[in-house]
Amino acid sequence: MGKIIVLGAGMVGSAMAIDLAKNHQVTLADISLQRLERVQEKCQSLRILELDVTEKKMLEYALKPFDLVICSVPGYLGYATLSSIIECGKNVVDISFFSENSLDLDHLAKTMGVTAIVDCGVAPGMDNLLLGYYNEKMKLTHFECLVGGLPKRKKWPFSYKAPFSPIDVIEEYTRPARYVENGQLIVREPLTDCEYVEFDRVGTLESFNSDGLRSILFTMPHIPNRKEKTLRYPGHIEYVRVLKESGFFSKEEIMVNGSNITPLDFTCRILFNEWNLGEAEKEITVMRVTLIGENKAGETEKVVFNLHDEYNAITGTSSMARTTGYTATAAANLILDRLFEEKGVFPPELIGKQENCFNFIINYLNDRGVHYNISRIIQQ
Amino acid sequence: MGKIIVLGAGMVGSAMAIDLAKNHQVTLADISLQRLERVQEKCQSLRILELDVTEKKMLEYALKPFDLVICSVPGYLGYATLSSIIECGKNVVDISFFSENSLDLDHLAKTMGVTAIVDCGVAPGMDNLLLGYYNEKMKLTHFECLVGGLPKRKKWPFSYKAPFSPIDVIEEYTRPARYVENGQLIVREPLTDCEYVEFDRVGTLESFNSDGLRSILFTMPHIPNRKEKTLRYPGHIEYVRVLKESGFFSKEEIMVNGSNITPLDFTCRILFNEWNLGEAEKEITVMRVTLIGENKAGETEKVVFNLHDEYNAITGTSSMARTTGYTATAAANLILDRLFEEKGVFPPELIGKQENCFNFIINYLNDRGVHYNISRIIQQ
Repeated sequence: MGKIIVLGAGMVGSAMAIDLAKNHQVTLADISLQRLERVQEKCQSLRILELDVTEKKMLEYALKPFDLVICSVPGYLGYATLSSIIECGKNVVDISFFSENSLDLDHLAKTMGVTAIVDCGVAPGMDNLLLGYYNEKMKLTHFECLVGGLPKRKKWPFSYKAPFSPIDVIEEYTRPARYVENGQLIVREPLTDCEYVEFDRVGTLESFNSDGLRSILFTMPHIPNRKEKTLRYPGHIEYVRVLKESGFFSKEEIMVNGSNITPLDFTCRILFNEWNLGEAEKEITVMRVTLIGENKAGETEKVVFNLHDEYNAITGTSSMARTTGYTATAAANLILDRLFEEKGVFPPELIGKQENCFNFIINYLNDRGVHYNISRIIQQ
Repeated sequence: MGKIIVLGAGMVGSAMAIDLAKNHQVTLADISLQRLERVQEKCQSLRILELDVTEKKMLEYALKPFDLVICSVPGYLGYATLSSIIECGKNVVDISFFSENSLDLDHLAKTMGVTAIVDCGVAPGMDNLLLGYYNEKMKLTHFECLVGGLPKRKKWPFSYKAPFSPIDVIEEYTRPARYVENGQLIVREPLTDCEYVEFDRVGTLESFNSDGLRSILFTMPHIPNRKEKTLRYPGHIEYVRVLKESGFFSKEEIMVNGSNITPLDFTCRILFNEWNLGEAEKEITVMRVTLIGENKAGETEKVVFNLHDEYNAITGTSSMARTTGYTATAAANLILDRLFEEKGVFPPELIGKQENCFNFIINYLNDRGVHYNISRIIQQ
């Protein structure tokens, strides 16, 4: 039994705290006492702590009693918070998905003797883990991850809901997408290269370029083809592109009725109603990770992992919280059980290369009903 | 040779003044001297007059010397301006297409001994004239008008350009559409009942319900089926409906960055760049008027008029100005030549019932290259 503090009581943070509280002594910290009390109602054994992570001295003081930190603060606070945690000498699992490069903190973590597992959700997260594992088993030539969080119920026109603000979704729709093809870094407009892809339980989805490779851009330079694409219900991207092409995502202020406003701010405000996922609204997570390479027998082998996960109506836990959060709580147990003891900053592809770590996480997720189905094809 | 004043030097007003100046002494009046001088550069024989039509005394004074007035002011000024013109005892042709019912001015016009021909453009205008003419020849059961102004060059996503503000286009896309079916007044959401329709020169267009019947709702109660639909390139309406459904056309103020703004105002501001027709940008007018009824021989006959008109690059005259403006200038000559002398307010269906008036207008348009092609089918 470890002493764990979870920073951030958002949808995923709360689910992680509740999951960990079954076997550990867990404190959930957040800037909002109201939010904390709502989570505590669901799980009496949780301790709660009102905390502003941007107050560095307070954060340091708060972290002192704990064996491990789970960091699930908003992305824009992520890098600074993770830095502070490492400076405090605390082992940490991070899912704040900040835009800075977490590997820049590797030296600090090594110096402080800290194990920091970062980007430890579903994607980034599980796709990295699968890649890391098979990178040891095979001489990989292709890595592809298709992933999307989708509402169960499709409402025209966008057929999309997200538990976070439209500004974060649109950021993903406007940031240039980087992938690697034949060993070359390719930079493409996001929302391009749309393809229809079939999935057993949801039918046809549409994939498009997005900038989701993150650490895999740097940690796997020997794999000549690496690509990540996002999945949406067909039609969504066409309508998003209509908005983008017409100027609705522009960040240049325009004057309307005497006020200067950016189209992007305005559009996010309008789309909030259209895209906001209700608290008990059913959603699903769909992911397909494809790995191609030469296996030990010298054959070309294709390994495909499929994930289909749904909102859990009994516990009221979203699929996004299940698939993201339980990967992180698995990693937390990995550290507490001393299965992974290396010091430094580790995205999950660096964890997956250890067979026992890989199996531990896969089993932990299976126990919670998050199943990755594998199929393997030897190609002629 | 008559003395004519044209009120409003917009795109259509200017084209009408230039057309009439060939055979008459014409004064063009507008609130903007700059705009007037630009038109005068193209046509030296035009006289120009800086005039604010909302200053009633000035308007009365200005109208005194003229035999006939052409009113082509912005729609929101139309009804008041037409009232003033009639009060001055001046014959008038109006194409300001205001939303009020022009027939409310019929009594005043009769009292003042004035002939006022209203809604005298292409649609409303020529469809009314064709209806009025065939209503005398046949026992009509069906009237349908499909009409659209389109850019020659289709730019994704909207494939649309207009010489007026998006606010006026969106008004047409949000006002409930009225039509008559089996003698019943039907009110439908605009943008509904989309159908693909084939046209010889442009290919497939998409028709949808719009509220364009105007006076035909009232003047032709004996025809059980009367319908008007707007034409756009396929896809346009789908994207417009996406905006509408998502709240981009809402008139309820929302707070963005501390300012209260309506989504509609904001959207119009953004779409202005996307939809604004450039001065020398090629556009076309497409119209199909279908009339079905029992002819004099007791047969069911279907009469179809097709119009396809394009921007005139030699004179720099838009198709919208040609098809709308030359219908009005034809009517002006009709009045000046004393071919139509009735007193009151007349939408064109009440002009078209006189064979000589109908022929005069058709010939006048033919002389200017605006051709209505007729096909007649006796149905079994």
